[in-house]
Amino acid sequence: MQTTVEKLKDEFPNALTNKELLAFIRKKLAPYGYGQTSLVATSLCCDEVNRPLEKDLKGLFGSYFSMGGLAGFPFGGVTGFGAMAHHIPDGGSCLIVYGPHVGIDSEGNVGKIDRRGRGKAGACCGSAVAACGYVKNVLEGKVNESGPPSSPLDAQQTFVGSMLLPHAERVHAAEDPMCELPYAMYDAQDEFIRQIVEKGSSHVAGEGNIALLGGIQINTPPGMSDYFLPLRFDVYNNKAEPVERLLDIPARVSLSLGLFVPSNNTIRSLSRACCFSSSLTIGHNGEDPGCIPECSHERRAHREGPDASRRLWIRQVNARRYVALLR
Amino acid sequence: MQTTVEKLKDEFPNALTNKELLAFIRKKLAPYGYGQTSLVATSLCCDEVNRPLEKDLKGLFGSYFSMGGLAGFPFGGVTGFGAMAHHIPDGGSCLIVYGPHVGIDSEGNVGKIDRRGRGKAGACCGSAVAACGYVKNVLEGKVNESGPPSSPLDAQQTFVGSMLLPHAERVHAAEDPMCELPYAMYDAQDEFIRQIVEKGSSHVAGEGNIALLGGIQINTPPGMSDYFLPLRFDVYNNKAEPVERLLDIPARVSLSLGLFVPSNNTIRSLSRACCFSSSLTIGHNGEDPGCIPECSHERRAHREGPDASRRLWIRQVNARRYVALLR
Repeated sequence: MQTTVEKLKDEFPNALTNKELLAFIRKKLAPYGYGQTSLVATSLCCDEVNRPLEKDLKGLFGSYFSMGGLAGFPFGGVTGFGAMAHHIPDGGSCLIVYGPHVGIDSEGNVGKIDRRGRGKAGACCGSAVAACGYVKNVLEGKVNESGPPSSPLDAQQTFVGSMLLPHAERVHAAEDPMCELPYAMYDAQDEFIRQIVEKGSSHVAGEGNIALLGGIQINTPPGMSDYFLPLRFDVYNNKAEPVERLLDIPARVSLSLGLFVPSNNTIRSLSRACCFSSSLTIGHNGEDPGCIPECSHERRAHREGPDASRRLWIRQVNARRYVALLR
Repeated sequence: MQTTVEKLKDEFPNALTNKELLAFIRKKLAPYGYGQTSLVATSLCCDEVNRPLEKDLKGLFGSYFSMGGLAGFPFGGVTGFGAMAHHIPDGGSCLIVYGPHVGIDSEGNVGKIDRRGRGKAGACCGSAVAACGYVKNVLEGKVNESGPPSSPLDAQQTFVGSMLLPHAERVHAAEDPMCELPYAMYDAQDEFIRQIVEKGSSHVAGEGNIALLGGIQINTPPGMSDYFLPLRFDVYNNKAEPVERLLDIPARVSLSLGLFVPSNNTIRSLSRACCFSSSLTIGHNGEDPGCIPECSHERRAHREGPDASRRLWIRQVNARRYVALLR
């Protein structure tokens, strides 16, 4: 049985302790004048194990706006973003730290956590694990896809399920779905927050910037620091135009599958290859598709093209390159 | 111009400072064994001005589960409640602190707040104020009532509006809608959380209790403590059956109007009378309706009866009495 740290290094390479994360943020944002006139917003899951990271983030620029809901999705939405933007100190900028979370318990099990006062390890993130079960049932035809929720009583979980659904095959094709799940949740949340920023960015006044730091939070057993794996750290202006990409450490690629499901080994080797080489790019027929601007419009076109159902495409987050493979 | 504290005492009598609130919670929950095996959950608005109360609540039993979203509604919903219940230490109980918030700025304006680094006071709670504008437009026929949201992008604010709508006339008939708004938001949230507890209570294991502390959080200018006006503090078992009502200080009544809109003065005098006398009860035709058990089923029946549209009913929260008036 692997220890928590061994498993963490294997599944979430380049994850930083909370302390390292804070130093990293300070260093990267200093050139943009972040400090007393900045506001930090978080979008982390409701789960109480996520408060320590928020407490640490409060150390950056003071009290934080909390836009997250179940599983970490920024369910405060466009109104939440707009409200946050109107709370930024005059002349200042904001930083949004977002992402799903996943526990690794003391026996090295991913998706589990040792909770205060409980004898048995429990699911973490519970909402993500529930959504994972839902999308599996949809894949297998056991339940129908839920429509939009008509009542607020459990709307968030319904939305978590529907936003995970496009990633369902990828999660369930993985060797350990619990390891793939947080990456899939991250991709779903990343897409969601981009849409929110696109609609809400103009609420940030003057020359204010919007820094987006997305990744996966990893919760560990008591006595250990939590970790955060940055998967995106970009600065945008208030027209939602990218100003700079601040992340240059290689991070694991994200995968999105159509109906074509390669073997787990294929996924694993591709992931790892992309992880450590920013030059791996394979186009539709093996050719290099070049550097495709990372915008949701083009990504969607890629996904929904005539070959979509037979295409495996891999987005290398940091190198801003797409790798598309046809069977 | 009234000072912040004068206005606070006038509009939110019996509000406690955060410190007083914590002592009050400790004292009231001690007989139920709350302590190391307890978990606190909050349902407070995203706004960063609400983190100090959460920080204080963390001092009770450790890190808190955060189930709140825009305006403080527990948008984590039934799944959120269930997840929280499964995080309670073995053999323990939970406390949920929920409610809307409202700012009072340094000039005594209710619904405004002096924010860090901003020259001008801003709306607080912004989401509630936006919903207040929406329901006014619906009342005046300027916009149609929104249906359920089809996308998660701004679902929360849509739900905030729809849950405030039944209280629209009452808010806009008030002398100062900004003072009535937090009471209306509280009532909407109270109804919502009761539904959640009803559906989710069985997730609390063993003999665990569910303490519900609902009220209005009042945010004040920098340098002052925030306040919390408790409007309900009940202990339930895990069958959603009431065990004890812990709140015996008189609090302001909540009002709910049908189409019958009395003058502002009528509302004010009734409110104040109920506030200071637990014996004021006026039935359908002036008779005493007696002590009606406070359960949502009966409240709904009251509201939807044949006379509903012409009835003004006043619920005296703490005395557990209803006062119904016919025009």
